[in-house]
Amino acid sequence: IVFLSLCPSLSTGLSAAKLLKASGLNPVVLEARDRVGGRTFTVRNKETKYVDLGGAYIGPTQNRILRLANEYGIKTYKVNEQENLVHYVKGKSYPFKGSFPPMWNPFILMDFNNLWRKMDEMGKEIPREAPWRAPHAEEWDKMTMQQLLEKICWTRYTVRRFATLFVNVNVTSEPHEVSALWFLWYVKQCGGTMRIFSTTNGGQERKFVGGSSQISECMARELGNRVKLQSPVYRIDQTGDMVVVETVDKQTYMAKYVIVATPPGLNLKMHFNPELPPLRNQLIHRVPMGSVINCMLVKGYCGSMVIEEEGAPISLTLDDTKPDGTVPAIMGFILARKCRKLSGLTKEERLKRICEIYSRVLGSEEALHPVHYEEKNWCEEEYSGGCYTAYFPPGILTQYGKHPFPCSLEPVGKLYFAGTETATEWSGYMEGAVQAGERAAREVMCAMGKIHQSQIWQSEPECAEVPALPFVTTFWERNLPSVGGFLKFMGTTTFLSVATAAGLVAYKKGLLPRS
Amino acid sequence: IVFLSLCPSLSTGLSAAKLLKASGLNPVVLEARDRVGGRTFTVRNKETKYVDLGGAYIGPTQNRILRLANEYGIKTYKVNEQENLVHYVKGKSYPFKGSFPPMWNPFILMDFNNLWRKMDEMGKEIPREAPWRAPHAEEWDKMTMQQLLEKICWTRYTVRRFATLFVNVNVTSEPHEVSALWFLWYVKQCGGTMRIFSTTNGGQERKFVGGSSQISECMARELGNRVKLQSPVYRIDQTGDMVVVETVDKQTYMAKYVIVATPPGLNLKMHFNPELPPLRNQLIHRVPMGSVINCMLVKGYCGSMVIEEEGAPISLTLDDTKPDGTVPAIMGFILARKCRKLSGLTKEERLKRICEIYSRVLGSEEALHPVHYEEKNWCEEEYSGGCYTAYFPPGILTQYGKHPFPCSLEPVGKLYFAGTETATEWSGYMEGAVQAGERAAREVMCAMGKIHQSQIWQSEPECAEVPALPFVTTFWERNLPSVGGFLKFMGTTTFLSVATAAGLVAYKKGLLPRS
Repeated sequence: IVFLSLCPSLSTGLSAAKLLKASGLNPVVLEARDRVGGRTFTVRNKETKYVDLGGAYIGPTQNRILRLANEYGIKTYKVNEQENLVHYVKGKSYPFKGSFPPMWNPFILMDFNNLWRKMDEMGKEIPREAPWRAPHAEEWDKMTMQQLLEKICWTRYTVRRFATLFVNVNVTSEPHEVSALWFLWYVKQCGGTMRIFSTTNGGQERKFVGGSSQISECMARELGNRVKLQSPVYRIDQTGDMVVVETVDKQTYMAKYVIVATPPGLNLKMHFNPELPPLRNQLIHRVPMGSVINCMLVKGYCGSMVIEEEGAPISLTLDDTKPDGTVPAIMGFILARKCRKLSGLTKEERLKRICEIYSRVLGSEEALHPVHYEEKNWCEEEYSGGCYTAYFPPGILTQYGKHPFPCSLEPVGKLYFAGTETATEWSGYMEGAVQAGERAAREVMCAMGKIHQSQIWQSEPECAEVPALPFVTTFWERNLPSVGGFLKFMGTTTFLSVATAAGLVAYKKGLLPRS
Repeated sequence: IVFLSLCPSLSTGLSAAKLLKASGLNPVVLEARDRVGGRTFTVRNKETKYVDLGGAYIGPTQNRILRLANEYGIKTYKVNEQENLVHYVKGKSYPFKGSFPPMWNPFILMDFNNLWRKMDEMGKEIPREAPWRAPHAEEWDKMTMQQLLEKICWTRYTVRRFATLFVNVNVTSEPHEVSALWFLWYVKQCGGTMRIFSTTNGGQERKFVGGSSQISECMARELGNRVKLQSPVYRIDQTGDMVVVETVDKQTYMAKYVIVATPPGLNLKMHFNPELPPLRNQLIHRVPMGSVINCMLVKGYCGSMVIEEEGAPISLTLDDTKPDGTVPAIMGFILARKCRKLSGLTKEERLKRICEIYSRVLGSEEALHPVHYEEKNWCEEEYSGGCYTAYFPPGILTQYGKHPFPCSLEPVGKLYFAGTETATEWSGYMEGAVQAGERAAREVMCAMGKIHQSQIWQSEPECAEVPALPFVTTFWERNLPSVGGFLKFMGTTTFLSVATAAGLVAYKKGLLPRS
C-alpha cells in the first residue's frame, strides 16, 4: 500500500508521512521542488553561516513544531530584543521597548488602545474551526479590512496607518485586499493581536539554531527514498480502485489514499479525474498567496525597526544576529504593495534602497556599505505562488468556507487535504503545517479503520522550554474609552452644559414661559 | 512550423488559428475539453431543437463575432421583447417596457437616474486599454463595488438593491467581491450601462439561429485535424529553440510560438519552464471566474423577468422562444451568491424552486408543470472554472494590471496570451474572444516579421444588419439632481429661510445690537 503527499507546504506533507510511517504504513512524498522544506528555506554559505529566507520564527503556543524540533535535537534561541527597538515615522526615529511603539498624544493613545482591544473582542466571536459561523460572519466578510479600519480608527495618519502595517506584516497583503472576517479569524487563531505581533512571548520570539529547514531535512532523512524530489504532480485519477498520480517527470504512482499538502491555490496545478466538486473547483481560484521578499543584510550592527514611510521598501526588520553574537545582521521584509512595486527592480537596486532606508533610520553612514546581502522573492516560485500564506478576499469565506473549513478540509473521494491553510491553530505558520499534516494522516488512518474518528483532532501539550505567558492588560487598557466613546461622552457633557447655560440665559431674557 | 493555441476560451483559440492559417502558417489547436466552443455550449435534442447554455447573446457594436457568423452564413434573430417585461419586487409583479424598470417615487427616480449617469461618467475617465491609468485608479481600485454603491445610492432597499442585481447579472459576482475600478471599466468597455444591460440595441439584442457554438464548430471544421480535442496542456517548456508542449493524453508538440488562449486563472493548469515572471505568477491566482448556472425551461409561455427577491433562485430571465415561435421557453440565470447556494442541490430541487418563482412572478399555476428543463452549472467545469468571465477583486488591477493589460497581455518569451479577458472591447463576451484571438495571431505574425507592429490592433467596420443606435438621454436624465444634490439644495434653502426667520425674531426680541 502506498500513501502520497504532494508538494509539501512547509513541513505539512513530511509530518503527515512521518506519522503514517510510524503507524506502520507505507507513504511516499512527491515534492515538486528540488528541495524539501516548502515555504521554509535555509541558505548556508560562508558569509552568513546559515540564514532563513522563508518561515523562520517560532514562539510560545506553537507546541507541535517545537515537539518535532525537540525530537531531532534542534535548539531554539531568542531573537535579540536587548537593545532598543526603533520606530521610524514622519522622517524621525524613536527608540522604544515592548510589542508596540508607544503613543503619547492622548487621542492617539485612546485610538490605538481601542484598535487592539476591538480586534481581539471581535476575534472572540469567531470560532477558530468555523469562522463562517460567527454571529456577524456575513457582515464582516462583505467588508474589507480597510473598511473595518475606517470604522474603528479615528486618526487616519497615525493609528490607521500603523494598522495597515500590522496587516501587511501579518498576512503580506493590503487591508483593502482581505476580508475583515478572515483577517480577524487569522489573528484570533494565532492567539490575538499581542501574541501574533510580539517578539518576546509572541510569534517571533525564537528561531532555530541552524535554520528552520533542518526539521524538514531531518524528517526527509528519516523517510529516506520515500521522498521524491522534482516530482510535480499534474494528474490525479480517482476513477479506479487505486488513485493514480502522474508527475511531470513522467512517473506514475498508485495509492489507496492521497494527501494533497499544497496551498489551496496550487491544487490548480493538477488535472483531476473526476473533476473536483463545483464549489471546490471555484474556491481554489479565490485564495491567492500573499507577497513578500525576505531580505537579509549582514553588517556590523543589528536591530529591529518598525518603518512607516511609503517610499521605504522595508516596513519591519528583526535582529538576525546569530545566538553566539556572530554575523550581526538585519532581516527585513518587503511586504504586499511594496513587494509588487520592487519586484521589477534588480537585486542590486533593491539592496541600494534597503541600505538607504536603514542608514536613515539608524542615523548611520555605515549602513550604506553592507558586508553581504541575501534575498528571496517568494512571488516568483511557481510551486509556492507567494508567501507566507493564502488570504481570503471579501465574500469568499462565508460563500465557500463551509466545506467545512477555510481552505477545504473535507476529503474528496480518497483525496485528503492538508497544508498550513487548513489548520485551526497558527494557520499560515510552521505550527499550522504540522497540525494539518498530522490531522490529515489521522484522517487517512481513520478511513482505514486504524483509529477512531474522535482521535483525528488532537491537542498538544505545552513545550516546557517555551512556556506561554498570559498577556496582562492594565486597568487603563481595558477601560480607556475609544475616541468615539470619549467624544460622545464629552459631546453629551458639553451639550448638557451648553443647553443648561442657554436655558439659563433664555430664562433670564424671558424667552421661556415661567411655570 | 507549428503554432499552438491551448484550451480555447469561447472562440479565441480557434479565431487565432483561423487567421494564422489564412496567412499561410501552420497552427494546431489543443483543446482541453471533448468539444470546441469553450464557454459557448449549444445542446441539441428533440425537446428544445437547440439551446445555448453558455455565451449566447450578441448585439450592436459586436462586429467581429457578427463578421465571423456572416462568413459562415449563421443568421441572428432578435430576442423577443414584444410582450411586456415583468419586474417582480417586494412580492408583486409590475409590467414594464424598455431597458430598466421605471421608478415612480421621485426620490427613487432621482437616485436611480443618478446611479447610471454617475457610473457612465466615471467610466469615461477610465481608458479602455489601460484602466490603471485612470486619474482615480488607485482610489477606485481599493474600493469594492459595494462601497461605491453605498456612496452613490441613497435608497438602500430600492436603488442599491437593483444595482446589486445589475452587478450580479453583468459579471456573475457580488458587488462586495469586485473592485469598483474593474467593474466600471468592464461596463465602459461594453459601451456603458445602457448598452451592456439592454436587450434591444444592447448586449442581449440577438441570438444565433441554431446556437452560438456553430461558429466554433465551423471554424473547427475549416481547421480540420489541426484541432485536437481532449488535449489538456500540463507543461510548457521554453528552454530550447522550440517551445515544447505536453498534454495530459501524453502527446508532445513542438512550436515556434504558442498562444495561450485560456482564461487567465487556467494558466495555472500548466507547469512552466522557466517559471512565469513573479507578478504574472501571482496575478493568475487572483482573477477568479464568476458563478452562474444557466437554466432553460420549456413551457407554453415565454417572457423576460427581473426578479428582486432574496429567496428566488433566478434574478433575470430572457425569452428563449425560437425565432419561428416554436418551443416557447424561458432562459433564467442563477447568479453569484445564489449559484453557490444552489450548487449543493440536485437538478430536480433546482427545477422545483425555479418553477415556483416563475409561477409566482407570472401569476400562473401552469409554470409549476414544465415540459422540459436543461441546465448547465459552469462552476463544475475544471477547464472553465466558472462563467462568464474573470473578475478582479479589490486592489489587483492597479497592482498587477500594468503588464500592460488587465489580464496580462504582454508576451512571456514565445508565449502570447489571448482569451476574452485580454480584450478591450466587450471583454468577457464572444466579441472579446475574437478580438483577443485575432490580436494574438497578429502579434505572432509581427514577431515573425510578416506584418508591422502598427497592424496588430485593428478596428472593425460596423455590421450593416446590426447597426448601433445611440442612446439618447432626455433633458431630465441629464439634469435631474442626485438625491444628495437635491437635499443639499433643499437644505441650503431651508437653512437660509430658518436663519432669516431666526434673525428677524432675534432682532425683534432685542438680542442683536441695532447698528
